[in-house]
Amino acid sequence: MARINDSYLKLKAGYLFPEIARRVRTFAEAHPNAAIIRLGIGDVTEPLPPAIVEAMQRAVGEMSRRESFRGYGPEQGYDFLREAIAEHDFRARGCDISADEVFVSDGSKCDTGNILDIFGIENRVAVQDPVYPVYVDTNVMAGRTGAATPEGRYAGLVYLPCTEANQFSPALPDEPVDLIYLCSPNNPTGTALTKSALQGWVDYARRNDAIILFDAAYEAYITDAEIPHSIYEIPGARDVAIEFRSFSKNAGFTGTRCAYTIVPKTLTGAAADGGRHNIHALWTRRHTTKFNGVSYPVQAGAAAAYSPEGRQQIRELVRFYLENASLLRSGLERAGIQVFGGVNAPYIWLKTPGGQSSWDFFDALLTQAHLVGTPGSGFGSCGEGYFRLSAFNSRQNIEEALARLTKFVG
Amino acid sequence: MARINDSYLKLKAGYLFPEIARRVRTFAEAHPNAAIIRLGIGDVTEPLPPAIVEAMQRAVGEMSRRESFRGYGPEQGYDFLREAIAEHDFRARGCDISADEVFVSDGSKCDTGNILDIFGIENRVAVQDPVYPVYVDTNVMAGRTGAATPEGRYAGLVYLPCTEANQFSPALPDEPVDLIYLCSPNNPTGTALTKSALQGWVDYARRNDAIILFDAAYEAYITDAEIPHSIYEIPGARDVAIEFRSFSKNAGFTGTRCAYTIVPKTLTGAAADGGRHNIHALWTRRHTTKFNGVSYPVQAGAAAAYSPEGRQQIRELVRFYLENASLLRSGLERAGIQVFGGVNAPYIWLKTPGGQSSWDFFDALLTQAHLVGTPGSGFGSCGEGYFRLSAFNSRQNIEEALARLTKFVG
Repeated sequence: MARINDSYLKLKAGYLFPEIARRVRTFAEAHPNAAIIRLGIGDVTEPLPPAIVEAMQRAVGEMSRRESFRGYGPEQGYDFLREAIAEHDFRARGCDISADEVFVSDGSKCDTGNILDIFGIENRVAVQDPVYPVYVDTNVMAGRTGAATPEGRYAGLVYLPCTEANQFSPALPDEPVDLIYLCSPNNPTGTALTKSALQGWVDYARRNDAIILFDAAYEAYITDAEIPHSIYEIPGARDVAIEFRSFSKNAGFTGTRCAYTIVPKTLTGAAADGGRHNIHALWTRRHTTKFNGVSYPVQAGAAAAYSPEGRQQIRELVRFYLENASLLRSGLERAGIQVFGGVNAPYIWLKTPGGQSSWDFFDALLTQAHLVGTPGSGFGSCGEGYFRLSAFNSRQNIEEALARLTKFVG
Repeated sequence: MARINDSYLKLKAGYLFPEIARRVRTFAEAHPNAAIIRLGIGDVTEPLPPAIVEAMQRAVGEMSRRESFRGYGPEQGYDFLREAIAEHDFRARGCDISADEVFVSDGSKCDTGNILDIFGIENRVAVQDPVYPVYVDTNVMAGRTGAATPEGRYAGLVYLPCTEANQFSPALPDEPVDLIYLCSPNNPTGTALTKSALQGWVDYARRNDAIILFDAAYEAYITDAEIPHSIYEIPGARDVAIEFRSFSKNAGFTGTRCAYTIVPKTLTGAAADGGRHNIHALWTRRHTTKFNGVSYPVQAGAAAAYSPEGRQQIRELVRFYLENASLLRSGLERAGIQVFGGVNAPYIWLKTPGGQSSWDFFDALLTQAHLVGTPGSGFGSCGEGYFRLSAFNSRQNIEEALARLTKFVG
């Protein structure tokens, strides 16, 4: 008798963003003339940079000719891309990472879930609250949690509250944990952790033989020169951290699909008998057995992100979205809304006026102002009373959205 | 203390193909003048068909302009592709499959491993022997097996021998099983299961509430009109089978990466409390939580496989490789080698002369004839004494390989 994975039955309804899409679709169908502006899902709007497009076109052309056609590539990614990543994203920032520690993938949404394959079920997992739902849902699916609680948490996970009171920089846990998800710059709060805070986490992990799962998908948005872009800028991190990066939000690859994970060769974990094992070897085994590499034209495009033209075009893209974020921030502040984030991240984290619940604010904003954002409670119990706006849209839509927001809260 | 997944420690060394690549690399470095012909890994050699290239170029161009740029797509794939698949690959063959039962992915290597996420650990899993190593290794990683045995098996899996004696069509298991991997046309034996045999499996699954994981990655190679291309040609299959398909070996997408999985909405599995649950809903949850869709230009290319030009060009590609297989078959038979497969599949399964072990034959063929194949024992204990050659290469290389093989066995 084929048995399902019962852990899936613990999941609360569906993944957050399809639920939002459903509500928006329902409203749009009932109000076909509403000019809905979407600042919800955090999807880029501007086209791929020319240098990347050119590289992809060239690579597709190569696939059309026998002499340059490529079949199966190395599952970890082509050397030309891994070397560019190691050089530009790490060594240029003084981080000791080598090309063979880079694992190219089709997304950090995939990686942050799949990484759990190599860890035992007995690990105690800590997540920030609010949190990117994938970190939580994938642990529920893996069987590491109990049931959902009325507060929107799951028994068995350790939650690290990120609130106004601690400036969205979580305190160390007061119980031992083994795997710690840290997202910085943070989705959804937009706050980036300081060097000092990250040093605290690396030291904690070293003392407790824990592993940090560091999601730096938004590092390109950091404007504060003191904020680390990589966990490996912190001394000692190579022995306790895995880092996730993505081309989605800097190069605009949400529909093109490329990302990578760094697994230092110095990282180890314990087996049941206490023996130490190399995490890089385990991830290599997982990656080469359950994955078959990223599309060659896509890797060629990602590599072009590191050319001088590519880097320049990406800087312009990121600057454009950061200007959107800045406009939203100042506009909302002028309207009397308390805002966070939007300085080192493409997300604004605002406090709902009058203590309105996140979903009530979502529904009111959608129906009255025809704007879509993401209710903070969708990211966890500490997100209740907050609301996320993404800076990914045209300048015209951002300005229009701001006008509507100002009117709406006025 | 971060704990690894101890199940990984049960894995025998590395995945098969990186091991072969290592031996070949070692030989090539020591003998740089050897003109090694690779008939091992089963990687296509001919370029992408023009209709597909054109569609991909057009799609990359769309990504360069704001008005046609695409960000996140539906994780299950774009409707234009899902509908083409349902229409051409299923309804046109009389199979009742709808577009919303199609889940587009980046590879059936990925899918056949990831599908295990939604099934409980207590399932008894059956695999053919010999078998595509991914089905076995991913179950070891998931914790469904005991230790490796000296015969090259794992305690806890049920093996279905495929030998000369049963014409490589396995008998039903003599103990209850819950999940059954069937690959037809088969990798590595090249044998395709008859309608009657498949009906037997569907009936078995219906009687035992088991689920068939049907890998039809090579269905485009079927030349015998009586052989089913899809499990859904068998009455009753919708309630007991998941099917995996790929664009790798028909459209040449090994380096481009696109595939799909069919999960009928009528498929159910049991929870621990005996309740029935919809497998389609579980896979939707997994796919939308742990995956973010296939690259848009790649999906556009895959959809072009269903245009009249695309279908014609793919037929020519497949015919080319089948002619290679036919040449290898007849040439080997003339040389006195017993061969199987190569009629409904791009793989030749030959019996090693003189009862030589598979790996000895591999080493001898590599060092003396500078040819690479895949040792049958790498696919399981019933593969010992057999050897797999793939038909994926230039006509010139196939003819040269045949000449060397003839000389080698002579």
